[in-house]
Amino acid sequence: MTLLLDPSVAASRIARVREMMGKQDVHGLIVPISGDLEWLIGHSAFPLERLTALVITLTNKPVLIVPDLEYPGVNQMPDVFMTVKWGDGEQPYSLITDLLPKSECLNLAVGGRMWAQHLIEIQYRFSKDIDINWEDASKIIPPLRRCKDEAEVVALRTVSECVDQVVLQIQEGYIEFKGRTERQVAEEINRLMIECGHDKVDFVLVSTGANAAIPHHMPDDTVIGDGILLFDIGGTKNGYHSDTTRCVHIGQPTDDVWEAYGVLREAQEAAVQAVKPGAPASYVDMVARAMIEERYPGKFIHRTGHGIGMDEHEHPFIASDNQEPLEVGNAFSIEPGIYLEGRWGMRLEDIVVVTPTGCERLNQRSRELVVIKG
Amino acid sequence: MTLLLDPSVAASRIARVREMMGKQDVHGLIVPISGDLEWLIGHSAFPLERLTALVITLTNKPVLIVPDLEYPGVNQMPDVFMTVKWGDGEQPYSLITDLLPKSECLNLAVGGRMWAQHLIEIQYRFSKDIDINWEDASKIIPPLRRCKDEAEVVALRTVSECVDQVVLQIQEGYIEFKGRTERQVAEEINRLMIECGHDKVDFVLVSTGANAAIPHHMPDDTVIGDGILLFDIGGTKNGYHSDTTRCVHIGQPTDDVWEAYGVLREAQEAAVQAVKPGAPASYVDMVARAMIEERYPGKFIHRTGHGIGMDEHEHPFIASDNQEPLEVGNAFSIEPGIYLEGRWGMRLEDIVVVTPTGCERLNQRSRELVVIKG
Repeated sequence: MTLLLDPSVAASRIARVREMMGKQDVHGLIVPISGDLEWLIGHSAFPLERLTALVITLTNKPVLIVPDLEYPGVNQMPDVFMTVKWGDGEQPYSLITDLLPKSECLNLAVGGRMWAQHLIEIQYRFSKDIDINWEDASKIIPPLRRCKDEAEVVALRTVSECVDQVVLQIQEGYIEFKGRTERQVAEEINRLMIECGHDKVDFVLVSTGANAAIPHHMPDDTVIGDGILLFDIGGTKNGYHSDTTRCVHIGQPTDDVWEAYGVLREAQEAAVQAVKPGAPASYVDMVARAMIEERYPGKFIHRTGHGIGMDEHEHPFIASDNQEPLEVGNAFSIEPGIYLEGRWGMRLEDIVVVTPTGCERLNQRSRELVVIKG
Repeated sequence: MTLLLDPSVAASRIARVREMMGKQDVHGLIVPISGDLEWLIGHSAFPLERLTALVITLTNKPVLIVPDLEYPGVNQMPDVFMTVKWGDGEQPYSLITDLLPKSECLNLAVGGRMWAQHLIEIQYRFSKDIDINWEDASKIIPPLRRCKDEAEVVALRTVSECVDQVVLQIQEGYIEFKGRTERQVAEEINRLMIECGHDKVDFVLVSTGANAAIPHHMPDDTVIGDGILLFDIGGTKNGYHSDTTRCVHIGQPTDDVWEAYGVLREAQEAAVQAVKPGAPASYVDMVARAMIEERYPGKFIHRTGHGIGMDEHEHPFIASDNQEPLEVGNAFSIEPGIYLEGRWGMRLEDIVVVTPTGCERLNQRSRELVVIKG
């Protein structure tokens, strides 16, 4: 899919990437099909065994290497980049090495999501006599992508409204849960995701009871009964992703579930309130973690959040080992959880965007534990 | 998602992979989240920045490195592999290098779909004094995966029946086309893909008129009018993929379209008839290509097909540069196309499985150009 992207925006983004390359003494950058490429030049496609890559050096005009059957779909911007196509039966890898600078000692970066089969083919084409320092592009592109501009915030708001419409139908009991399998309910939510405006469904997690204690449990044939039912759902619209988690409870919750949900609710709220420009990402993680750890030690088993934009997971990561300060325009999830193995799990997730004074929440649906008749 | 896989099947597949490693003098193999991993041990998850990888050496029991939040979802087979978990804030990469053999000279293979950011981190942990030959695992796992066993053929048949139900609704005119956008129609087909039994939609291409001349055109806001309308759709059920292409024509086709479609139909049929054990993959490509080239030189701009199974695209590739002989159990697409830039495009695609005497077609819907009232 070609996203509408003004060539002047693409040119400005490439200029900023180059400036970052210069600062870090990186001589060449290879960007495969990924959120990075969408963000740079608005080109998107399925990552496949046929290589597509944008090659950026410090001096020459960037070149997009593209399979010829995808060439017509490229949003050509002749002032910004050139396009070279290759066909089935040909090898694209030496096209790339030919574009990179020649030197005895090179610092080369590749987009983190390039497939290993492509990277290995590229590496293989360099003489062993050349001293190459390969690095992933995480210090070059993500620091730029993490600050969303106004159009990007609008796109994130729009896709978050789509997912909120699905959550509304979950919370208002428009969907039958009890007695159906997780997989059946996930199929219905898949359909709703599209009906509510997503171009594409990224994931629909539906976890009942003890399955909810597995944060990444995938919907299976477990029949939904009384207890917690966790939904973690996300999709894409115009290249930008949604991601939100809510829990409902089938039948009356026991006291221990109410109590835990109260702790989770307060921890998530406190973490949202802790967001402001300059605060370290780890501080937001710590605020949520401290409140949960006090009452449920060792039961919050993942980081508090991840950046979101043209990738489902991107920088900044809201984690104990990330001291980077938050900046205006950073967009990320805040999604603490409590997981009691073999019993139940719960998680509450909103996307927020950092503003000059704090943050804007993009998900608006009720954060209470909605009780549905058992 | 954990697929049901008998531990004895997993053990046998790992044994065959090891045998292949031995033959090719590969000392260590690292398999990330991918069709390879699903096929080996039935473990599937979203490929993310958190590394999951199965490390196989020639002598030790394989070890699955997995993020702790995905640990409970692993289908444990203690007789087949061990599992080591790591948590947010920790680094999984030295776990991997610790498991690999120590030597001055190593041949190491990685699954082709590992993300570069993981491979680079692993490479970085080896001393520059060690001479490592990195290769992708394409010579180790794909030669085994390309021969489907009976259970795999059943799974491919089942998912192909799902997609055929969607095609039936397209061909019988249950969907409104004219006057709607490609995107709107794609959304409806997305819903049908799930209703018809897929666990997940992989892609829905809907291309009208000149857009169909771009083989990988993604549905956009083009309004569907008279002319060719091409559908290339695929999804997943129980880990196996469907993939089929059909064209309909809104309003009466002109003579040149009828004529071209006749050529395409015959070329696809001839290629299907050319499939048999021992025939080189390139022969099947050549059969379809020769018939189209004769009448439309340079207008069939991609290979004739790709293998399919737990990946949408896998070995064998039905391409002019692949002389490998077909074997019983190979499953792949046969999808010739004719593309007239700026005017129209057409493609016809079925999945076939090689049998001792020829092949079984898994897609059964009409291969005619169905005319829909304009």
